[in-house]
Amino acid sequence: MSVIYDRVALIGLGLIAGSMAHAMRRAGVAGDIVGTARSAETRATAQEIGLCDRIVATAAEAVADADLVVLAVPVGAMAAVAEEIGPHLKPGATVTDVGSVKKAVVEAVGPHIPAGVHFIPGHPLAGTEHSGPRAGFAELFDNRWCLLVPVEGTETGALERLRGFWEALGAQVEQMDPEHHDLVLAVTSHTPHLIAYTMVGVADDLRRVTDSEVIKFSAAGFRDFTRIAASDPTMWRDVFLTNKDATLEILGRFTEELFALQRAIRTGDGDQLFDYFTRTRAIRRGIIDAGQDTDAPDFGRGLSRAQKAG
Amino acid sequence: MSVIYDRVALIGLGLIAGSMAHAMRRAGVAGDIVGTARSAETRATAQEIGLCDRIVATAAEAVADADLVVLAVPVGAMAAVAEEIGPHLKPGATVTDVGSVKKAVVEAVGPHIPAGVHFIPGHPLAGTEHSGPRAGFAELFDNRWCLLVPVEGTETGALERLRGFWEALGAQVEQMDPEHHDLVLAVTSHTPHLIAYTMVGVADDLRRVTDSEVIKFSAAGFRDFTRIAASDPTMWRDVFLTNKDATLEILGRFTEELFALQRAIRTGDGDQLFDYFTRTRAIRRGIIDAGQDTDAPDFGRGLSRAQKAG
Repeated sequence: MSVIYDRVALIGLGLIAGSMAHAMRRAGVAGDIVGTARSAETRATAQEIGLCDRIVATAAEAVADADLVVLAVPVGAMAAVAEEIGPHLKPGATVTDVGSVKKAVVEAVGPHIPAGVHFIPGHPLAGTEHSGPRAGFAELFDNRWCLLVPVEGTETGALERLRGFWEALGAQVEQMDPEHHDLVLAVTSHTPHLIAYTMVGVADDLRRVTDSEVIKFSAAGFRDFTRIAASDPTMWRDVFLTNKDATLEILGRFTEELFALQRAIRTGDGDQLFDYFTRTRAIRRGIIDAGQDTDAPDFGRGLSRAQKAG
Repeated sequence: MSVIYDRVALIGLGLIAGSMAHAMRRAGVAGDIVGTARSAETRATAQEIGLCDRIVATAAEAVADADLVVLAVPVGAMAAVAEEIGPHLKPGATVTDVGSVKKAVVEAVGPHIPAGVHFIPGHPLAGTEHSGPRAGFAELFDNRWCLLVPVEGTETGALERLRGFWEALGAQVEQMDPEHHDLVLAVTSHTPHLIAYTMVGVADDLRRVTDSEVIKFSAAGFRDFTRIAASDPTMWRDVFLTNKDATLEILGRFTEELFALQRAIRTGDGDQLFDYFTRTRAIRRGIIDAGQDTDAPDFGRGLSRAQKAG
């Protein structure tokens, strides 16, 4: 494949940016990758493992002469980073991000982008429960969706170039407006995460069931929740603070339905429970058919990353 | 390994019984395996794939001369099966079960077991989201817990024999009383399942987010919920109807904590969210250390069963 951006700057070097670095090299789409992170320790680790071609100390340095700038920091840190890099962006460059919410990012970053620079927010729907510069791997985006959320007046050429870039990294690209993005993600990701965090917290609080029992007997159900609830706390705090409205709306619907099922349990209404569980089973089938998971039974003991990727 | 029970009768031929048949053969602990199921179709399938040495039409026939009888039917069907087999049990035989709740099983089955027959309820904590006679595989119980819940006056010899049997099938065995079992499982399995079912149902109901969007963009969080929510509807209906008290108690605590987090989101209390998410992350580490999952990142595309088992 040929180079799409001569120089790419990664601001933030966590799981997503790290995986992008690996995937860019695999695809050969970046001439030169410059990385930076706020923490000196993160920068040192990235340097040590050769994650980028060059690691620099500040975001302002990183974006100098960059053709693509990727904001890969928690959503709450986006405004400050945008303010810092704004005056240093190269005319004609593209700025994108990988944040899990989009309305708040458009509002935080947009005002700092000078005329002549393309700002095209994005969100690759991929991740693991691990974080940090060592967590990345080239296959993370393969066959995953990357949602691009262009603001009004985005130039078609710049948009198509970014789309081609994500496709080269393995992703399938779709466009969406910011409000709809935030609602869809509240349903498919944000609310499920909050619920998983809550359930794990409840288990930890319960005096009559010991921690060791919770851990030992986590075989079915709970184990998947703990995996979800192990994701990066800073990232998730920012997601809930910045996608407040949609998350609260979905949470309201969730508790409403939960109370209906709770009532069915209390009154012994087996038919209602059976019908509900039958309906949800069909949805699973749709996800497998859509290629976002496999039909292989998950009994909790996966293989190493190398084996999975092989 | 040498034979532990000369004849084992499996009543019900779903995922668990099927996996037991495979695991018994792998270990060589059963002289002869007889199976039965209520549905003629299930019996025909089991016959076709050679799941047992012999398939018979009724539970009464299956238990004739059996040294171990395994009740592997939904909890709601246990009483009727116990009543049917009671008069046909061989003196000195052991009857066990694999139900997900234990107090209700003790009450439903106990009264039908004649004197001279050992009744030792059990619960292997293992499963996948698949069901039926074709879903079983020999490795399902490897390194998983099997909880034995002996009733008062259980003979030590019979108990140790059953423990050795489960260990030969790959499981680690622990003893627990029925009430405590039901509370532990309400936390680690039953409530998480209800929550997953609810979240999947909410997603399905939402008009403004289409089904195809929910399915396409299920990459993070939601995908694990759909896997959990794809489990057998009959089994789960019976679990909630028969472990009502403990499930309702844990659900009450869950909604209490969820409301506290919801309030933190509404008021923008980032510190509370961050602290909560940091605490839950530590619990995940404990589960990995306990060997009930691996640290390999799960990014949703597993391997086939054969590869997993290999």
